[in-house]
Amino acid sequence: MSGVSQKILDSMEASSWIRKMFEEGAKRAAEIGAENVFDFSIGNPVFEPPKEVNEALAQLATIDTGGLHRYMPNQGLPETRDYIAGKLNSETGLGLTNNEIIMSVGAGGGLNTVLKALLNPSEEVIVLVPYFVEYDHYISNHGGVHKRVETNEDFSLNFENIAAAINKRTKAIIINSPNNPTGVVYSATELQQLGQLLLKKSAEIGHTITLLSDEPYRRISYVGELPNILNHYKNSIIITSFSKDLALPGERIGYMAVHPEHAEKDLLIQAAVIALRILGFVNAPAIWQRVLPMIGDAMVDLTPYQANKDILVNGLREMGYQVTEPGGAFYLFVKSPIADDAEFIALAQKENLLLVPGRAFGRPGYFRISFCFATEKIEKSLPIFQKLIVSL
Amino acid sequence: MSGVSQKILDSMEASSWIRKMFEEGAKRAAEIGAENVFDFSIGNPVFEPPKEVNEALAQLATIDTGGLHRYMPNQGLPETRDYIAGKLNSETGLGLTNNEIIMSVGAGGGLNTVLKALLNPSEEVIVLVPYFVEYDHYISNHGGVHKRVETNEDFSLNFENIAAAINKRTKAIIINSPNNPTGVVYSATELQQLGQLLLKKSAEIGHTITLLSDEPYRRISYVGELPNILNHYKNSIIITSFSKDLALPGERIGYMAVHPEHAEKDLLIQAAVIALRILGFVNAPAIWQRVLPMIGDAMVDLTPYQANKDILVNGLREMGYQVTEPGGAFYLFVKSPIADDAEFIALAQKENLLLVPGRAFGRPGYFRISFCFATEKIEKSLPIFQKLIVSL
Repeated sequence: MSGVSQKILDSMEASSWIRKMFEEGAKRAAEIGAENVFDFSIGNPVFEPPKEVNEALAQLATIDTGGLHRYMPNQGLPETRDYIAGKLNSETGLGLTNNEIIMSVGAGGGLNTVLKALLNPSEEVIVLVPYFVEYDHYISNHGGVHKRVETNEDFSLNFENIAAAINKRTKAIIINSPNNPTGVVYSATELQQLGQLLLKKSAEIGHTITLLSDEPYRRISYVGELPNILNHYKNSIIITSFSKDLALPGERIGYMAVHPEHAEKDLLIQAAVIALRILGFVNAPAIWQRVLPMIGDAMVDLTPYQANKDILVNGLREMGYQVTEPGGAFYLFVKSPIADDAEFIALAQKENLLLVPGRAFGRPGYFRISFCFATEKIEKSLPIFQKLIVSL
Repeated sequence: MSGVSQKILDSMEASSWIRKMFEEGAKRAAEIGAENVFDFSIGNPVFEPPKEVNEALAQLATIDTGGLHRYMPNQGLPETRDYIAGKLNSETGLGLTNNEIIMSVGAGGGLNTVLKALLNPSEEVIVLVPYFVEYDHYISNHGGVHKRVETNEDFSLNFENIAAAINKRTKAIIINSPNNPTGVVYSATELQQLGQLLLKKSAEIGHTITLLSDEPYRRISYVGELPNILNHYKNSIIITSFSKDLALPGERIGYMAVHPEHAEKDLLIQAAVIALRILGFVNAPAIWQRVLPMIGDAMVDLTPYQANKDILVNGLREMGYQVTEPGGAFYLFVKSPIADDAEFIALAQKENLLLVPGRAFGRPGYFRISFCFATEKIEKSLPIFQKLIVSL
């Protein structure tokens, strides 16, 4: 018997490509200077949070009474949950109360919490390829099994594939729009059709299929306000964070929102709150719960993201790369000019350009570019992309 | 099939007594005024963090460059880990580096992370009764089984019981000094004897038994500096938080420290970092990692805790209660004047005095008082304790 968990040992081999690249990038930057490394591997925005965040922090730092940093109900501060419910109500008109909101330690923490609340051993969760493969771990942590379903060539939902994958063991499906790694956003029509399919299939298999909408990129949209899943399927839960739209990924603040008409709402909320507690999250960090209602609608400036997207989409297309234009998020999922995406990534790495291979998202033959960096950096990377495609 | 996990449903029934009392206390306070409720249920200090915490926050709020809130290595900021390693080195002389420190989302998050890193299905973790029963969940979350071992009448370690509980499936033991709920602290002699026993038993069973020292109350000591487990058993890991000594329980900041000579140190650290990531913690909240090295040795003032302890120990003893004097933490574990601790707790609740029954810590026949409250409040509670014991 080894001193550590065999399951963890197994997963060490397949450790996150994204994190590996991130650590490689830091190493290279130390060796040859950050200005010479094009680390487009991780979605770690170089932009700072909106100024309202620091203003709120400064204000909180003047308060030394009232127990701002104390324990609270595990579910989170009522006023913070009111603020979130209010925002969702103005989008959806559904009349959520703070009862349906559970503050979480980021979206990764939220997904683990909800999956712990939902899953019995061997129950299945559908994931849509290409996808953020950390989901596999999140599901397996709580005894579940991930079931991969391919999307269409343009990464839109393939309803036939989804229908075919559903069986008696299906407990949930995870969607992610805007999508990591493709930047694709699902239309209201697609969400509506998905909702109808899940209702029909839930009836067939005799239990509710819960839809988990992982949407930290929701406000990073290039196509205006996106449709809200809560308006299209009642058995859905939003799981999200402020990592991207407030540029706070290291702070671990997010929430879960359960549809007020979810078939087993009360039980599910109770279960999620217990899961949050016993997984050791206990509650989302207090100070960030206090900051949120103080900053109104503030968010990061999308201008550089929009500029970066346009420069990359146009630039790469001119060079002959096959690019799907993203509707949101800050990723481009590009067809690899050679079949072996890992080989292409290795060639790019020799040029100090760090990318993530499609296989890290379950779809070999592609690579992902993260473009949440200074526009100048993006522009300077174009000759490298050019050199790579010419050399092949 | 229900919509939620059966395991979670089962645990709802046995949901945390402490949390139940905490929520009851909030409800009562809303009904009859906080000044009329003696909610001594939860360890949620009413004291504010030391002023250095707000000073550091104010300073951080002036910085809007450099990405203070970005992702970082999952293990935590190197400078924060240097700060922790330095503190442990001055206590132990062991020469830890930042490599042995992993920043965590509180001690609850740290325990889940380490247990996920260690446990294979059905492996056992020894817990010492009475204890914080959330451990049962933490262990079961990752497929392990808790094995209860009784301590002595005075809550000191019973080595015969521990030895008898160890078998081929034993993977770890959790100790907690100063202890919740008893306030007992283990002496250097006890820790040394425990370390020797674990070394001998590890050799017998053919694998390392890792000792997990859960010590968020370490600096809340009434008997001077406590011995450090790292000096007494090489296969140990400290898991702790700043919830109590900095009065930041809602902020979820803590760390794990792996002994530099742990038999499988490198593998264990790698496994813990992966566990931290895939459980969705990702990293400890960035802002609190930045605050820590800015505040030196600042901590909460122990004066009110010391006063509260003395008032309660002396006061209750005079009334005829059987009290073990705590060496640390801010709890008193008192023998219930009637055999049924739940009944006693119910009587106290009628007087708006909220306590936690011993059975919530695996030892019926006792009750726990949390005394991290204003001294005036503690003084005012004495007549209620008097009334209760007289009425029986």
